Amino acid sequence: MTNSVGPILVYSKIQGDLDKLKLLLTAALPRAQIHFAASDEEAAPYLSRAQVLYGWGFSGVLLRSMPNLRWVQKMGAGVEDIVEALPRGVLLTRTDGRLIAPRMVEYVIAAILDKTAGFPQAREQQKQRLWKLYRPQTVSNLAIGVAGLGEIGTEIARVLRFFGARVLGWRRSVAACELVEQLYAGNESLPGFVEQCDVLVLVLPLTKETKGIFNAPILQRLKKDAHLINVGRGGVLDEQALLAAVEDARLAYATLDVFENEPLPPDHPFWRNERITITPHACGPLLPEDVAPHFIANYAAFAEGRPLSNVIDVSRQY
Amino acid sequence: MTNSVGPILVYSKIQGDLDKLKLLLTAALPRAQIHFAASDEEAAPYLSRAQVLYGWGFSGVLLRSMPNLRWVQKMGAGVEDIVEALPRGVLLTRTDGRLIAPRMVEYVIAAILDKTAGFPQAREQQKQRLWKLYRPQTVSNLAIGVAGLGEIGTEIARVLRFFGARVLGWRRSVAACELVEQLYAGNESLPGFVEQCDVLVLVLPLTKETKGIFNAPILQRLKKDAHLINVGRGGVLDEQALLAAVEDARLAYATLDVFENEPLPPDHPFWRNERITITPHACGPLLPEDVAPHFIANYAAFAEGRPLSNVIDVSRQY
Repeated sequence: MTNSVGPILVYSKIQGDLDKLKLLLTAALPRAQIHFAASDEEAAPYLSRAQVLYGWGFSGVLLRSMPNLRWVQKMGAGVEDIVEALPRGVLLTRTDGRLIAPRMVEYVIAAILDKTAGFPQAREQQKQRLWKLYRPQTVSNLAIGVAGLGEIGTEIARVLRFFGARVLGWRRSVAACELVEQLYAGNESLPGFVEQCDVLVLVLPLTKETKGIFNAPILQRLKKDAHLINVGRGGVLDEQALLAAVEDARLAYATLDVFENEPLPPDHPFWRNERITITPHACGPLLPEDVAPHFIANYAAFAEGRPLSNVIDVSRQY
Repeated sequence: MTNSVGPILVYSKIQGDLDKLKLLLTAALPRAQIHFAASDEEAAPYLSRAQVLYGWGFSGVLLRSMPNLRWVQKMGAGVEDIVEALPRGVLLTRTDGRLIAPRMVEYVIAAILDKTAGFPQAREQQKQRLWKLYRPQTVSNLAIGVAGLGEIGTEIARVLRFFGARVLGWRRSVAACELVEQLYAGNESLPGFVEQCDVLVLVLPLTKETKGIFNAPILQRLKKDAHLINVGRGGVLDEQALLAAVEDARLAYATLDVFENEPLPPDHPFWRNERITITPHACGPLLPEDVAPHFIANYAAFAEGRPLSNVIDVSRQY
């Protein structure tokens, strides 16, 4: 039995994505009424009637101005920007992390190999026409910690194992993860986890519990030649403490795709630090064609009153 | 039954390796007479009596001045520099490619991801404090050709499959390889193979048959945005033709670890080409601790008259 579902509002500030979503969703849901908006202004005419909101880049304030809203599906895995504003009784779902994982995995492997295989060093030598042998490190000799063992962190652990790395994991709960050689659970185990890592990969959601947990005392536990990679959320890391650690050479290198404030402000000290590589939240970008099928399947479930997948537990915030 | 084997000469111009080999081999073969040399001068006193030669960096001329030589084991997978000078009746073996493969694999994956994940582009943007989203490519969308399906090429194919790439293979013989989706065999199939590849990885030995086979007509078959990676031997590639292809934008990018002449001469035009990345034969460097056990096992076989592993077929030159 399909219940009647009111209009869908699809929101993305990336016009190219919106165009693709228009093609995909109108074809897949021919009987649904669907509106598309690339800004709050474009969304305004549809806010009063829309019952479903799909997309990203909208604010909690927008949600609060949608009196008939019943369900929000966020494109992307993080919901920290809207979860607290979610009106009571509105269902919140997110994109399945497995749809994002392959691109995230490639970013993490690329970031690790960027340091171990030595291409940046080779390019410096090339500028000087210098033929000088160096010996690349191998991933199989590294202990790599993955903080956050959700759909994406688990996949990262799997690929690192394939490369022969010693993989350690940290998560909030004690739920087992076969892919890691050693599992650390809960905040009290964080220092012991961090000090084991040659490479530390952060794949954590931003919640009240994870905000700022990688602070100065924790970062001090890192090995001097450690490489920190953050592909989760910027807010889990104390950016001033990270900068101090890199500047004092208590940490060798950081590759950061996510930041407390995005876009990263032009006067942020990270920009000019040679031991920090900045990418513009480019890791695991969602392609409409990759993620729209998940929305379409969830829409069918919603219309038929079946359970949706990847529902956010509002109390945990992820 | 152990036959008496005369003195072993161990040769490497890398003093650190020689020191490690001294520790490893004297411990493993306490009754053997072993001499160590980092140059032809240091080797001179032992040439007349040595029956076994192990190492690399020595010339064919040296072999010709060893009247009692019975067996040479080359550190490294290539023997093109000595095979033609090998005196008749002398056995030639090389290092098992599987001992080298993990480092070669990491180099190839690093070279591919260096282009697809976009870190060099991110660094350019970082210099300008520019936050500008780009979308990395994924390996799973690429057709990757591996030319040379020996121990190392096969392992490269296996890892590329794991990343979801479409893997094509080219080899001299029609021997099957389960790891490639499509196998091309023999010179006449080379153009058809090359024109399929988004990335072309060369892992070929240098022999009379492979010398210069990647010439201008073959390189012209490459896609305009193709990335060529050479980790085998420089001589399989016509360097002038490669340079012309890159300069005419008939080929987007080349990552080269091996060259016709090494060290690459300071006036070589490759150095100053921004679409060519040069590494100083740094891919798959051998660590004495990784490869000495293979020599030790072969030595035991030699002393006992059993067959050795990784014997070179002098007529094929590999």
